[in-house]
Amino acid sequence: MTLTLDPDRLFPVDPATRAVARGLYQRVAELPIISPHGHVDPRLLLDNEPFGDPAELFIRFDHYVTRLMHAAGVPLTELGIPSRTGGTPVANPREVWRTFCTHWHLYAGTSSGYWLRHEFATLFDIDVQPSEATADALFDLIQAKLATDEFRPRALFARFNIEVMATTDDPMDDLVAHRALAADPSFTGRVLPTFRPDAYLNPAAPGWVERVAALAAWNGSDVSSYAGYIEALAGRRRFFVENGAVSADHGVLQPLAVDLAPAEAAELFGRALAGELTAAESRVFAGHMLLEMARMSVEDGLVMTVHPGVFRNHSSATFEEFGPDTGHDIPVTTTYVEAMRPLLEKYGNNPDFHLVLFSVDETVYSREIAPLAGFYSSVYIGAPWWFLDAPDAVLRFRAAVTETAGFYRSSGFIDDTRAFLSIPARHDMSRRLDAAFLARLVCEGRIDLDAAERIIVDLVDALPRKVFKL
Amino acid sequence: MTLTLDPDRLFPVDPATRAVARGLYQRVAELPIISPHGHVDPRLLLDNEPFGDPAELFIRFDHYVTRLMHAAGVPLTELGIPSRTGGTPVANPREVWRTFCTHWHLYAGTSSGYWLRHEFATLFDIDVQPSEATADALFDLIQAKLATDEFRPRALFARFNIEVMATTDDPMDDLVAHRALAADPSFTGRVLPTFRPDAYLNPAAPGWVERVAALAAWNGSDVSSYAGYIEALAGRRRFFVENGAVSADHGVLQPLAVDLAPAEAAELFGRALAGELTAAESRVFAGHMLLEMARMSVEDGLVMTVHPGVFRNHSSATFEEFGPDTGHDIPVTTTYVEAMRPLLEKYGNNPDFHLVLFSVDETVYSREIAPLAGFYSSVYIGAPWWFLDAPDAVLRFRAAVTETAGFYRSSGFIDDTRAFLSIPARHDMSRRLDAAFLARLVCEGRIDLDAAERIIVDLVDALPRKVFKL
Amino acid sequence: MTLTLDPDRLFPVDPATRAVARGLYQRVAELPIISPHGHVDPRLLLDNEPFGDPAELFIRFDHYVTRLMHAAGVPLTELGIPSRTGGTPVANPREVWRTFCTHWHLYAGTSSGYWLRHEFATLFDIDVQPSEATADALFDLIQAKLATDEFRPRALFARFNIEVMATTDDPMDDLVAHRALAADPSFTGRVLPTFRPDAYLNPAAPGWVERVAALAAWNGSDVSSYAGYIEALAGRRRFFVENGAVSADHGVLQPLAVDLAPAEAAELFGRALAGELTAAESRVFAGHMLLEMARMSVEDGLVMTVHPGVFRNHSSATFEEFGPDTGHDIPVTTTYVEAMRPLLEKYGNNPDFHLVLFSVDETVYSREIAPLAGFYSSVYIGAPWWFLDAPDAVLRFRAAVTETAGFYRSSGFIDDTRAFLSIPARHDMSRRLDAAFLARLVCEGRIDLDAAERIIVDLVDALPRKVFKL
Repeated sequence: MTLTLDPDRLFPVDPATRAVARGLYQRVAELPIISPHGHVDPRLLLDNEPFGDPAELFIRFDHYVTRLMHAAGVPLTELGIPSRTGGTPVANPREVWRTFCTHWHLYAGTSSGYWLRHEFATLFDIDVQPSEATADALFDLIQAKLATDEFRPRALFARFNIEVMATTDDPMDDLVAHRALAADPSFTGRVLPTFRPDAYLNPAAPGWVERVAALAAWNGSDVSSYAGYIEALAGRRRFFVENGAVSADHGVLQPLAVDLAPAEAAELFGRALAGELTAAESRVFAGHMLLEMARMSVEDGLVMTVHPGVFRNHSSATFEEFGPDTGHDIPVTTTYVEAMRPLLEKYGNNPDFHLVLFSVDETVYSREIAPLAGFYSSVYIGAPWWFLDAPDAVLRFRAAVTETAGFYRSSGFIDDTRAFLSIPARHDMSRRLDAAFLARLVCEGRIDLDAAERIIVDLVDALPRKVFKL
Repeated sequence: MTLTLDPDRLFPVDPATRAVARGLYQRVAELPIISPHGHVDPRLLLDNEPFGDPAELFIRFDHYVTRLMHAAGVPLTELGIPSRTGGTPVANPREVWRTFCTHWHLYAGTSSGYWLRHEFATLFDIDVQPSEATADALFDLIQAKLATDEFRPRALFARFNIEVMATTDDPMDDLVAHRALAADPSFTGRVLPTFRPDAYLNPAAPGWVERVAALAAWNGSDVSSYAGYIEALAGRRRFFVENGAVSADHGVLQPLAVDLAPAEAAELFGRALAGELTAAESRVFAGHMLLEMARMSVEDGLVMTVHPGVFRNHSSATFEEFGPDTGHDIPVTTTYVEAMRPLLEKYGNNPDFHLVLFSVDETVYSREIAPLAGFYSSVYIGAPWWFLDAPDAVLRFRAAVTETAGFYRSSGFIDDTRAFLSIPARHDMSRRLDAAFLARLVCEGRIDLDAAERIIVDLVDALPRKVFKL
Repeated sequence: MTLTLDPDRLFPVDPATRAVARGLYQRVAELPIISPHGHVDPRLLLDNEPFGDPAELFIRFDHYVTRLMHAAGVPLTELGIPSRTGGTPVANPREVWRTFCTHWHLYAGTSSGYWLRHEFATLFDIDVQPSEATADALFDLIQAKLATDEFRPRALFARFNIEVMATTDDPMDDLVAHRALAADPSFTGRVLPTFRPDAYLNPAAPGWVERVAALAAWNGSDVSSYAGYIEALAGRRRFFVENGAVSADHGVLQPLAVDLAPAEAAELFGRALAGELTAAESRVFAGHMLLEMARMSVEDGLVMTVHPGVFRNHSSATFEEFGPDTGHDIPVTTTYVEAMRPLLEKYGNNPDFHLVLFSVDETVYSREIAPLAGFYSSVYIGAPWWFLDAPDAVLRFRAAVTETAGFYRSSGFIDDTRAFLSIPARHDMSRRLDAAFLARLVCEGRIDLDAAERIIVDLVDALPRKVFKL
C-alpha cells in the first residue's frame, strides 16, 4: 500500500470551508518554528552526531509509540528498552523496527501515527506503508539517509526552520551544552534551557534530601537551612536566566498553592529533611514551594508553566524494570480554581508575571482555564498537551476556550516533545488545525476573513513570543 | 475594515444543511421574545431616560466585556469602573470607548464579540469595525442615536418585540418599579420580578444577620424566631407572586439539599445568628433552606431555578476595590445526583413543581441533568448559561442532552443578561443555533423536517411558557 | 405524517464524506451480529412463544421508553407497570400503546426514538408516524404480525443474523435455559450466559446474607466460612464456563479495587454476615471482592467487564412502588486511575486477562480509559453504554479515545439491551457511526481508505471476537 500525504489534510471537509482553511494555512505554513517548551537533549545539537538507526530514532525513546505496542502484548525489551533488572536482552534495532512495522495499523487515527507518517513522507520520501513486507527495505532506506550529512541534527534544525527551541533541565545542570552552543559561531539557532525544579520542591519525591544537599553545597549554606534552600533555588534560577532561560516548568500531580508563613515553612522543611512529613504535609510543603516559585518568577521574570494532573509510573512493575517515561503515565481529574487561588491572589494580576496553565483533563478548558485567563492578566491558556495534542482534541480545545477567552489569551503551540524529528510535523499540525478552526468561524459568519488572517499569524508568531518573553 | 452581518451566520457550513437551517430559522425569527430570567433593572423601563453614552451602555456594566480588557492589562478604572478605595479616577466615557475599540480584536470568536457586532449592525447601522481610528466617530454616531426617542428603553423594548421580561430582585425589594410599570397604561409589556433569596438563606453570606433582621421586622416577629424567619420568607414570596413573579432563583456554590428536622434547623438558626456556625454547618443550614424553598415553591407555585457552581469574587483585591460582578467569578465542578436527592425525593415528581437546573460545568449535561430531567417530571434542563451561552457551547449542550432527554425537557432560552441592548442578539443567536442543530439532525436522517418545524417553534414559544408558567 | 427510513441516515452531511461513509458501511452492513453483552432472557428463545402485544413488546419493559413519558407526567401504571403497593390498576395494552403514540414527539432526537423508528419500518413495514390518530391501527397491525410464525423469537433471531448473543445471569442460576438451547438441534444460534455477581459481593446489597447462604449451601460449606464463600464463587464461575460463559460482568457504583490480606478479608466477611460493617467497610470488602474476581478471571479465563458509575433507584418512592429498572438510575462522576490501580498492578499486563472498562461519565474517555487501554495489555475500551449509546455520543466517544488508543483497543459494539427487537437497530446504528467516523478521518487525510476498509470490518467482527474470546 502506498503512503501519501494529503496536501489538504486536517482541513474541514466542506469544500468552501476547506478553501478558506487552505488560504489561512498558507499564511503561516513557512513561518519559523518557535518551540518554547520541549524535551530535546541539547547535546544532540552540540555533538551533531548522526542518529543511530530507525529504531533508536522513532521507537525506543518515544513512549507514545512504545505504549501501543506494549498494549498489544509486545514486551518492552522487544522495542529496544533495556530491562534494569536483568533478564531478557533487548531486540536489535532491525528486529525492533520490524516489530513496529508489523504493528503499524495500531497507529491509524492516533497522533503518533499522524506525525510518523508526516516524517516518513517529508523527511525520508517514503511512499509505502510500513508493514512486515516493507520493514527491511524501509530500515535500510532510513539508515542510509541517517548516514548523510543532511540528516545530522544541526542540518535538520536548519531545515526545520527552528528559530528558537527550549529544552527542559535539572536545576543543578551546569548548562554546559547550552553555553557551548551559544558560544559556537557555526550554530546560529537559539537553544534555551528551562528550569524544571519538581524533584527539588516535593519532599515526597525520591532523592529529595540528596537534591536539597546538592543545592546547599552549591550555595555554600547548611543543608538544614531553609533560608539557604530558598537562596539556592533563587540562585540557580538566576544562573538559568543568565544562560538564556525564559521559563520555569512545574509538573505537579495537583496544582496546589499554599501560603505558609516563613517559620511554618522552615519547620516543615526541617521535618522533611528528617523524613518525618506525612503525605499531606509533603503536599502542603510542595504547595508552598509552588507559591515561592511564583514569587521568584515575579522577581526574575521566568515564565511559570504548570503541567499538572498526570499520575506518573502507574505500573510499578514496569517502572521497576524499565524506569520512568515508559508509557504508563495516566491523567487524573484536575481542578485549579480553589487550589491555585492563593497564588492568583498574590500574583495573578502582576503585570510582569506570566503563568501558563496546561491540562490533560479536558473538563477544565471551558470551566476553569478560559475563565481564569479571561480575567487574570498573568494567566495564559496552555496549548493542548500530551494525550490532547491531537487533531480532534485540539479542535475541542479551541472550541472550549475561544468563546470565553478569545484567541489572545492562549499560549501558542508547544510541541513538548523528546522526538526531535517530529517537531515540524507537530507545528504543521497545529497550524493546520488553527486554520481549520478559524475557517469554520469565518464560514459561520462569526469572524471576518481579515481578522482570521491576522489571528493565525499571531497564534503562530506573536503569541508565543509574547507569552514566553522571547 | 467593514463590519457586516452574515444573514446565514451560525448556520452549518454544508450547503444543503444550511438551507434546512435557514428554513427552520425563518419560522421563529420574528416571534416575540420571552425572557423568563435576566438582570435588567426595571427602573430602566420605568424611568425611560435616554442611555448615557456608549461606554456606559456597552462596557462599564458588562463584566463579560471588561474582563477581557482587564486580562490584557487594562485597569478597571480605565473602563469606567470606580475604585471604592479611592485612588485613580475613572476614565471619561470617550476614553473608555477608545480603549475598547483599540482592544476590539480580543473579542473575535467570543460570544460578547458576536453580540456586540449584532447590536452595532442592527441597532446603530454601524458598518466599520471598531478600532483606534474609528473610535471617535463611532462614539459620536452612537451618542447621537442614543439621544433620539427611538433609543429610549421603552421604544427599544417595543422594537425588540419583548413580550415578557423577568428581572432579578432582592426579597425585601418593594417592587415599586414593577408595580408602577404594571399600572402604567402607556406601557403594555410584562416586566416580572424574580425572587432571589441567596443572601437571606446562607449564614456565611456577608450581612446575613442584618437581612434576617429585616425579614423579622417586616414580618413583625422576633429576630431569633426560626418560625418567624420561615414565615417571613413565605410572606415575601407571596408578595412577589402577587406582583407577577413566576420564579424564584437560587445561586449556590454547590447544589446541596439537606432535610433537617425543624428543631435541628431552629437550633442551627439560633447559633447562626450568634455567629457560631462552622463553615460546614452553614452549608448544612443553607442546604436545608434550599429544601424549604422547594417546599414553598410547591405551595406557592414559583418555578425554582438553580444556578450553581460559580466561585464568586475569586480575586479579593479586585472585589475590595471594585465590588462584585467585575469579571472574576469562576466556575467549579458541579454535581447534582447525590446532593440534590433529598429535594428530588420529596418533590421531584410533584406535578405542580418546576425545577430548572442550570450549570456552568458542561460535564453534568449528559451525565446528570439530562438523565434527571428524563425521569423526574419536575426537572427541566436549563439553557446553557454564562460562559456556556455561546455558539459552540450551545451546540455541545444540545448534543449532550437531546439523545437522552429529547427536546421537550429543556427550558427554552434564558438570556440572563444585564445588557438590555444585547437581548435580541442573544435570542436570535439561540434561535439560529437551534435551527442549526435541528437541521443537522434532519440531514442525518434522524428527525423528519416536519417534526423539526414543530420543535423549533416549541423551543422558542411553547416551552418557556410552559416551564415558567407564563 | 409518513414514517420513512433514510438509507443514508447517520452519515456525515458533506456529500463527499457521505459517499465514503456509505462505501465503508456497505462492507459491514450484512455481517452477522455478535452480541457479547446484553439482557435478553434466554427463556424467550427457549419457549419461542409469540410476543404478547405492542405495549409489552415496546414499552412496559423498556425503561428508556417509559422514563420520558413519566417525565411528561404519565403515571407508570398507565404504561403497564404494575404497582407493588396496590392501588391503581395498570392500563390495558391498547391504552398503553395509545399513550405512547400520543407522546411520540418526545422521542424526536433520542436514541430510543431512533431505534423504534428503525424497528417500525424494517420489521413491521410501518409507514406512518405514531400519533393519537394512528395508534389503534398501528396496534392492530403490529398485533397481527406478532401472531405470525415469522415473528416468533427464534425466527427473528435467525432473521436478525445473530451469530452469538450473551445474556446476563445470576451466579446461582441453574442455566437450564442455556443448556436446553445448546442441546436443541433445531436451534443453531449461540446463546451464552454471563456471570453477574454484584449482589453476592457487596455486603451492602439487600439480601447479601441470603445469597452468601445460598452459595454455601451449594458448595456444602459453612455459611461463616470465608474460604467456602470464595470456593463457591469460583465453583459457580466454573459452572458458567462449562455452560459457555465468556465473561463476568460487574456493575459497581465506583470502580474500586482493594488488596486485602486473606485474614483481613475473612474478618470483614464475618462481621458483614453479622451485619456489623460500616458503609466504608462494605465498600472495602466489595473492592476486595472485585480484585478477587479479577484473580479468578485470570484463572478461569472469563473476560471481566466493569459497568460503573450508576446511582441505582434514585427515586425511593418509585422504587418501592414499581421496583428496579423503572427509569431513575442516574450516572455519577467516575474515576478509574487510582481506585483501580491495585487491580491493574496485579493483573493489568497478564496476557490472558481481558478487562473491559465502560463508563457513563464521558470525561473518563480521553482522560483515563484511553490512556489505560493504551498501555495495559488487559484493558479494552468499552463501547459507549446506556445514556451514551446514541449517535452524537458515540462520535464523541470515538473522537475522545482514538487519538490516544487507536481503533484496536476498543471492545467492539455491545448492545446491552433487554429489548430483543432493538438489537439489529442498535448494531446497525453502531456500524453506520463507525463508517461516519472513519469517513471523516479519510476525507481529512488522516487515514487511508484501504486502512479504513480494514478497520471497519475489524471493529464489527475481529475485535468483539478477540476481546470476548469468542
